[in-house]
Amino acid sequence: MAEYRAPVTDMTFILQHLVGMDKIAELPGYEEASADMVAAILEEASKLSGEVISPLNIVGDQNGVALDEKGQVVTPAGFKEAYQQYAEGGWGSLPFDPEFGGQGMPQVLAANVMEMWQSANISWGLCPLLSQGAIEALESSGSDELKQRYIPKLVSGEWTATMNLTEPQAGSDLAALRSRAEPEGDHYRIKGQKIFITWGEHDMAENIIHLVLARLPNAPAGVRGISLFIVPKFLVNEDGSLGGLNDCGAVSLEHKLGIHASPTCVMSFGDNAGAIGYLVGEEHKGLACMFTMMNNARLGVGLQGVAVSERAYQLAVDYARDRVQSPAPGCKESAAIIRHPDVRRMLMTMRTLTEAGRALAYAAYGSLDHQLRGEDSALHQARVSLLTPIVKGWCTETAQEVTGLGVQVHGGMGFIEETGAAQHYRDARILTIYEGTSGIQAQDLVGRKTLFDKGEAMDALLAEMLDCVEVAQQGSDRLQAISGSLLSAIEVLGQTQRYLLKASAADINLAGSLAFNYMMLAGTVCGGWQMLKAAQAAENLLSTEDADVNFCHAKLISAEFYMDQILPRYLGYAGAAVSGSESIMQLDEDLF
Amino acid sequence: MAEYRAPVTDMTFILQHLVGMDKIAELPGYEEASADMVAAILEEASKLSGEVISPLNIVGDQNGVALDEKGQVVTPAGFKEAYQQYAEGGWGSLPFDPEFGGQGMPQVLAANVMEMWQSANISWGLCPLLSQGAIEALESSGSDELKQRYIPKLVSGEWTATMNLTEPQAGSDLAALRSRAEPEGDHYRIKGQKIFITWGEHDMAENIIHLVLARLPNAPAGVRGISLFIVPKFLVNEDGSLGGLNDCGAVSLEHKLGIHASPTCVMSFGDNAGAIGYLVGEEHKGLACMFTMMNNARLGVGLQGVAVSERAYQLAVDYARDRVQSPAPGCKESAAIIRHPDVRRMLMTMRTLTEAGRALAYAAYGSLDHQLRGEDSALHQARVSLLTPIVKGWCTETAQEVTGLGVQVHGGMGFIEETGAAQHYRDARILTIYEGTSGIQAQDLVGRKTLFDKGEAMDALLAEMLDCVEVAQQGSDRLQAISGSLLSAIEVLGQTQRYLLKASAADINLAGSLAFNYMMLAGTVCGGWQMLKAAQAAENLLSTEDADVNFCHAKLISAEFYMDQILPRYLGYAGAAVSGSESIMQLDEDLF
Repeated sequence: MAEYRAPVTDMTFILQHLVGMDKIAELPGYEEASADMVAAILEEASKLSGEVISPLNIVGDQNGVALDEKGQVVTPAGFKEAYQQYAEGGWGSLPFDPEFGGQGMPQVLAANVMEMWQSANISWGLCPLLSQGAIEALESSGSDELKQRYIPKLVSGEWTATMNLTEPQAGSDLAALRSRAEPEGDHYRIKGQKIFITWGEHDMAENIIHLVLARLPNAPAGVRGISLFIVPKFLVNEDGSLGGLNDCGAVSLEHKLGIHASPTCVMSFGDNAGAIGYLVGEEHKGLACMFTMMNNARLGVGLQGVAVSERAYQLAVDYARDRVQSPAPGCKESAAIIRHPDVRRMLMTMRTLTEAGRALAYAAYGSLDHQLRGEDSALHQARVSLLTPIVKGWCTETAQEVTGLGVQVHGGMGFIEETGAAQHYRDARILTIYEGTSGIQAQDLVGRKTLFDKGEAMDALLAEMLDCVEVAQQGSDRLQAISGSLLSAIEVLGQTQRYLLKASAADINLAGSLAFNYMMLAGTVCGGWQMLKAAQAAENLLSTEDADVNFCHAKLISAEFYMDQILPRYLGYAGAAVSGSESIMQLDEDLF
Repeated sequence: MAEYRAPVTDMTFILQHLVGMDKIAELPGYEEASADMVAAILEEASKLSGEVISPLNIVGDQNGVALDEKGQVVTPAGFKEAYQQYAEGGWGSLPFDPEFGGQGMPQVLAANVMEMWQSANISWGLCPLLSQGAIEALESSGSDELKQRYIPKLVSGEWTATMNLTEPQAGSDLAALRSRAEPEGDHYRIKGQKIFITWGEHDMAENIIHLVLARLPNAPAGVRGISLFIVPKFLVNEDGSLGGLNDCGAVSLEHKLGIHASPTCVMSFGDNAGAIGYLVGEEHKGLACMFTMMNNARLGVGLQGVAVSERAYQLAVDYARDRVQSPAPGCKESAAIIRHPDVRRMLMTMRTLTEAGRALAYAAYGSLDHQLRGEDSALHQARVSLLTPIVKGWCTETAQEVTGLGVQVHGGMGFIEETGAAQHYRDARILTIYEGTSGIQAQDLVGRKTLFDKGEAMDALLAEMLDCVEVAQQGSDRLQAISGSLLSAIEVLGQTQRYLLKASAADINLAGSLAFNYMMLAGTVCGGWQMLKAAQAAENLLSTEDADVNFCHAKLISAEFYMDQILPRYLGYAGAAVSGSESIMQLDEDLF
């Protein structure tokens, strides 16, 4: 099986021509992100991901992780060494503040690199993904002392971090959290059990920093009574050296459908005197702090959707080129199945959903860079907020389809585990669930991101998409054709949004009923917008001298395929969305 | 975890009111199939499936099957005993000729019962499913001697059967078969290797009858040079007693994504002197004989799609009733998630895709009964031929969605194997692949079933669906609403069919390019037709005295949900289908 080959050309094209990397490099603090530097970083990350991390993917799936009798998680052979290479290469420090040892690179560039780790090996890649979110949460909410003590070692990769939210009775519903924190001197004693803690325990780094949600004794009920704590696996002395083991650890590992090499731990805090923890941010405001981490993680999971789609696509293309079966239409000799129309339809579906998702995810990260460093911060923040549930929701739902097609292209061999296609399918299945299910993303999009601002951020997005179409309509015949159907789709998205704004006031079930279809509609349309932008850029490039002609032609065909074969789904999503809530809610609960 | 509960009420409703079981019971030879008999059979099958076969499902998944050093397959604990109960209960004999010990029951009734075995346990259920197909192939093509010697023991369930088509280089492309058969006296010596042979070896029955495709020495190349042979595991003496072991057996088992308890064997024939085999039907005409078996098996696999969907639905409903998480809209107290709109959307999607698929599959089996025993045989044969790829293709594609939603409803727990939802998702994944991939079904629908007869069978179906809508348009407001959107969908299916008939002549790639979307379009519309028929029947029943009011109300809501939330997809499929082949075929093979 071939290893992962990072799509550096597509990444660079998106950075340069869709995201506007030159503008981002001009933002204060990003001066180091020159085109040469970006190219060098992508090149090096491409090597590490393809040569070191990717070969561990199938091994990790087959061998999984184990919890030994001392409560230590043993990772698959090679995982620790790969992590050390990652840490020593400074890869964990890319987007962080130089004050803490970071390289101060743009978020969108860090996202490119993060996509590579996730394509190479989702199980392995979850560990650095979680550390990055924790660093952001600490940067934005931690006291100076906590920052100084914890961030540098996380940035350097010497330590890793986890997110401890879920409890058995509190999954999507964080209001139901029961873990307790009792004040004791300058710290707290944490007691409680957390489940589904990714990389909660392992042997790849010398310390693990748990970010834990818990309630103080005087906490109000609900989500406004939750506080956030740092609970290190090994206590950290004032001089930064490691002290004793804290009163916490993994008590069991889950037996999962996929991501077998990522330890999913049941964590117990405070079986004895209580785990020592330190408050992050204000009392009872832990959820706001955690949301920083979660929003980062949500974009990251959307990116995982793109990443596993890319990997599944590469594997399927390799197989379709090699596998000879039946003559293609109009031929007499048996041909590689890549020549058969239905196989091409599958491969092109995989390809274009991946390209569109990648461009959309990077658009969100690009806006994040403008939000963090630019002038129109509020405007960009609204865009990032709006795109986050779309990227998370749509790119992970499409990852189910793409990895499923990856199995399908392989025919019977796809169902055999040795082929590797099934692993991507199994691994991808978690993506629509963790960091907020697709339903939670959809409700975020409908509620906080559309109803709350009366559709303002969505209106701005619709206007920008329409502008893009208008320009294309003045362009070549080809661009006019590509943008023609997108225009109708954008209009229908706008109509659906107005239906939501109008009808949800009179029907408490409407928002929840249409949320998923609204999200998928928005994703499909936004994906089309990105493909149109890509087609425009490709055509522009073709008129220059040093264009990569093959790449630009392929991009135009991708855009055409997307509009022909993917975009028409918008009618199905919109039709379902505007059908209201009655037939969804009407059946008596006992009659299911 | 609750065991499978057979949906006897829905099955009976479909038999009585959609399929027209009373008419079928009047066909010659089906006199025994009285309403009481049907009820008794469903009741007994429901017990065996729920109490005996269903509890083995998760055990089989976890323990799998093993090949011991003697080349024997060891099935999971309980499998053999369950199979003995099945055989002793005469379940394998339901639809077969009393001449061979069968009960002469209608195919559609046998299909109801078959659905139950598959819902209870797909891995286990594959074994009887394959025997049924083999019996049909022997009935239609075998010599009298072969029939007398082999069929009674297969009908009684004392022996089981397999289908040996695939070779490493010959998957979808049977023309590439290389297995050889050399004549020797009254038999042949078979040599070759076959892969993906389901239940190719096991310990549940005393003999296994392999149906094997191979080439005679003088065979022309391609599919017209393939002959069909019976190759018994143990040779059968003239008096019917078992003789020596034949020169064939399993050499390895595949490590698969799902159906772990179903042994998928690499079979070797003729490692020594050659396996002794007997010709079935004429020389070089094996494919035609095998197609009898394959068409039966294709409908059966479509039914497996319905079956695993039903099982996943039941599991998800149980969980959604128990799992309390967050308040439902307009409430303050946390509620069972079945009250949340997005969870209901998922459950109703699962429910209605299953109901629609079941009704459509039974419609095909009902037509099969009329074809086999009725007067308008050719008409019904055309209908069965047309519906077979739709049932196989659409019901197995929707099974991916339904079992995926089954995982999703469980949230994080769905990703944990112990929950059981993931098993249905993994098991279902084979259904769009074996017995002809969805791409093969789609090409069958487009080629042999639409282009070949110039759309005649599809025209007849369209006309019948339009008649059904017309009647509904004269009915209650509710039926008018339900049938309104279906009318447009039927018209669009007709337009797409005409586009195919017209445009494919000038574009050799068109048929293959639109095939999948045409199939999904046809399935979605046919599913809507069945839901409309169900709504009409439910409304009629509600005006009678002894109606099951709850069931009828639920059926009307299902129909409304289907039209609101599922049917709108037809626009997406049709839009993709009529987009032609250009953007599918245009990308240079090297640029993927």
